[in-house]
Amino acid sequence: MSGAEAMWAADVASKALGMECEDAAPGTARVSMVVRDDMVNGHGICHGGLVAALADSTFALACNGYGEVTVAAGFDITFLAPARRGDTLVAVAVERARAGKSGLYDVTVRRRSDAAVIAEFRGRSREVGRVSAP
Amino acid sequence: MSGAEAMWAADVASKALGMECEDAAPGTARVSMVVRDDMVNGHGICHGGLVAALADSTFALACNGYGEVTVAAGFDITFLAPARRGDTLVAVAVERARAGKSGLYDVTVRRRSDAAVIAEFRGRSREVGRVSAP
Amino acid sequence: MSGAEAMWAADVASKALGMECEDAAPGTARVSMVVRDDMVNGHGICHGGLVAALADSTFALACNGYGEVTVAAGFDITFLAPARRGDTLVAVAVERARAGKSGLYDVTVRRRSDAAVIAEFRGRSREVGRVSAP
Amino acid sequence: MSGAEAMWAADVASKALGMECEDAAPGTARVSMVVRDDMVNGHGICHGGLVAALADSTFALACNGYGEVTVAAGFDITFLAPARRGDTLVAVAVERARAGKSGLYDVTVRRRSDAAVIAEFRGRSREVGRVSAP
Repeated sequence: MSGAEAMWAADVASKALGMECEDAAPGTARVSMVVRDDMVNGHGICHGGLVAALADSTFALACNGYGEVTVAAGFDITFLAPARRGDTLVAVAVERARAGKSGLYDVTVRRRSDAAVIAEFRGRSREVGRVSAP
Repeated sequence: MSGAEAMWAADVASKALGMECEDAAPGTARVSMVVRDDMVNGHGICHGGLVAALADSTFALACNGYGEVTVAAGFDITFLAPARRGDTLVAVAVERARAGKSGLYDVTVRRRSDAAVIAEFRGRSREVGRVSAP
Repeated sequence: MSGAEAMWAADVASKALGMECEDAAPGTARVSMVVRDDMVNGHGICHGGLVAALADSTFALACNGYGEVTVAAGFDITFLAPARRGDTLVAVAVERARAGKSGLYDVTVRRRSDAAVIAEFRGRSREVGRVSAP
Repeated sequence: MSGAEAMWAADVASKALGMECEDAAPGTARVSMVVRDDMVNGHGICHGGLVAALADSTFALACNGYGEVTVAAGFDITFLAPARRGDTLVAVAVERARAGKSGLYDVTVRRRSDAAVIAEFRGRSREVGRVSAP
């Protein structure tokens, strides 16, 4: 089991939010999530923090695919369209750059039914150590 | 009931995450959340997306206190220290600037027990309309 | 002369910094700049603000290509490698998203000689009005 | 001469842009700049990249006051009001957080005449080594 797979297997939070990893490889990942009734905010749309959580989980999978323990130093997200109850959201992460121990990953979150872009996310990663051999 | 109070009352997502609004006024808010067992990620720490969700909810309360419906256009977050299972996190939002229909809000997330800063968040808001009278 | 061309013709600052527009079309642009002796900071490398200025000018050209007066609401930049005196930097802007009056543009700044990525920039635009007919 | 003073003395770019350091201490700095004729962009206002350059120089002074060589990993800037030819801009940096080798600094750029906020900047710093003794 790769470092990213082990990390995902232990990621209770992503599972509790119903996220499903559809694809993951060094530098890229695709994760989906259905907007449940308990994910809607006071404006009647999917809570922005949960859209961000989906993107953040996808980012984590992409940047942990190289065998180094890599954490999120931070991220920026722009919301482009609201997601609604019942929508299936699909986040795709691609590596934008790596330099030293730092990395930059772009994640686009779309609604599956019509491919509308819900949010654009850019994550800043930082390697913090090597995965210990089993 | 103010616009922010009505918004919070309808915010199912924040409630499902156990967030409690401790204070809210135009331009500022304080919200707390306990890191539950189901909020931990694959590195054994609170999922960054959920730290962001806490900050985002606090930001929403602060920027919706003026009676205009205001949404998050986006935000940036920097993670400074990990939060652990059982930690109580407290997010405090302050208004940094307002110009036209745009606003900028800074949210600091701390661990309550030792006041350690967990994350710094900066939210970009956008007014989209007036709350209709009842 | 298009709105973007007129804007560029009037852009004294970009000219004073020696920037040259190599290409511009709605949603995209390419601009180059040589790192002059008077652009070096106290660490002996190109001042980050001037790398940002190059990216910002490129972003302005790309987002003003549609005939609406569009301004920068803000941007985020990540520095990946230092640029040195004499380097020719080339910035390429691509449109990432447009929604309503807002837009998101990614600009990559590279050194021409070896294509090394110097910085990744993401600009947030806002349409503020229509160009008046002559 | 401190590390920050030596860095500023060698900062040709900031001088060429007419910046004046008015105050600097570990974690804070104040720098001013007059918007010259050659700093105006195609919308007739101060080029956003030069506002960013002012904030970036102020950030560099603040984060290099501790005796470690510290570079900008990146920054985010939001533009709140336009600056005009002849305006004197004053940027004030304050340290927001430090954690390990990373730091976060907030810089507010105001017009001196009326204290209007022109831009809010948040810089991400990274220590890269110690200043060698002379």
